[in-house]
Amino acid sequence: MNSIFIRRSVRAYEAKPVEPDKIEKLLRAAMQAPSAANQQPWSFITVQDRELLGRLSDVSEYSKMLHKAPLAIIVLGDMTKCIYPIMWEQDLSAATQNILLEAVELELGAVWLGVAPLHDRMDFISNLFELPDTSKPFAIISIGYPAGNQENKFIDRYKPERVKNY
Amino acid sequence: MNSIFIRRSVRAYEAKPVEPDKIEKLLRAAMQAPSAANQQPWSFITVQDRELLGRLSDVSEYSKMLHKAPLAIIVLGDMTKCIYPIMWEQDLSAATQNILLEAVELELGAVWLGVAPLHDRMDFISNLFELPDTSKPFAIISIGYPAGNQENKFIDRYKPERVKNY
Repeated sequence: MNSIFIRRSVRAYEAKPVEPDKIEKLLRAAMQAPSAANQQPWSFITVQDRELLGRLSDVSEYSKMLHKAPLAIIVLGDMTKCIYPIMWEQDLSAATQNILLEAVELELGAVWLGVAPLHDRMDFISNLFELPDTSKPFAIISIGYPAGNQENKFIDRYKPERVKNY
Repeated sequence: MNSIFIRRSVRAYEAKPVEPDKIEKLLRAAMQAPSAANQQPWSFITVQDRELLGRLSDVSEYSKMLHKAPLAIIVLGDMTKCIYPIMWEQDLSAATQNILLEAVELELGAVWLGVAPLHDRMDFISNLFELPDTSKPFAIISIGYPAGNQENKFIDRYKPERVKNY
């Protein structure tokens, strides 16, 4: 699975939309993630509307690339589905990581923008999309075709000193 | 990336060790994960020692397969590396998901056994391996060659009603 090794945080994109079949594939990948007791406590918002992407970019100082991104996927916790609410962040992280990797597979580039557990960012998104209390914004993924020098490529992060063997 | 789609939670294994080059590949995959501000707040313990695997299996009622598993990887938070400690669970989840997917790629099977934020499980592991306070047990991954009917295979989890588009 080369995608694991060449994935980078891609923040600059071509002015080209992401095809509907690729968007569906990203969402299908997300929903294949493991979760505690298979609770699948997630839902998703896709945003391609330029005006909404512009407003979403104000969620934090690290989200400005959304102004020019063709696509954002907002990953949400659906707390009504939780058997083990304490595990919701882990479940949604696995779903988010699947989207990032599937993006590489589809020749897209993506970056994970952290939202939860920071309440200011969560509230910003809840207000923008008028979400019910049971829907908790977890992360935003900014996605598009990589532009400039932002391509996916291997950079070695292996640190053997971080491993102990028994 | 077929691995995302065929990954299953595999809990029964052949009585066959996991090769050292595959163990290294799993750890390399883990360390390629994204993390908040690229903090990489992780370390890993590999366990192949049968007696230790037996003791580790008592961490919870859901970990009994470790008695017969050839390999466990314990994913730990290294809090000395954290710039954003509040994001440690998300970072370690991405690393854990990479290990699960790379296992599929290597024709292995694996299952994510949740540890944090459950203090009884975290303390159990800290005591067993005499970990310093800065090292926080996050998850155990049980790994081996799939046995019985436990192979990786596609089961569709896509739920289009979980998606809203703007």
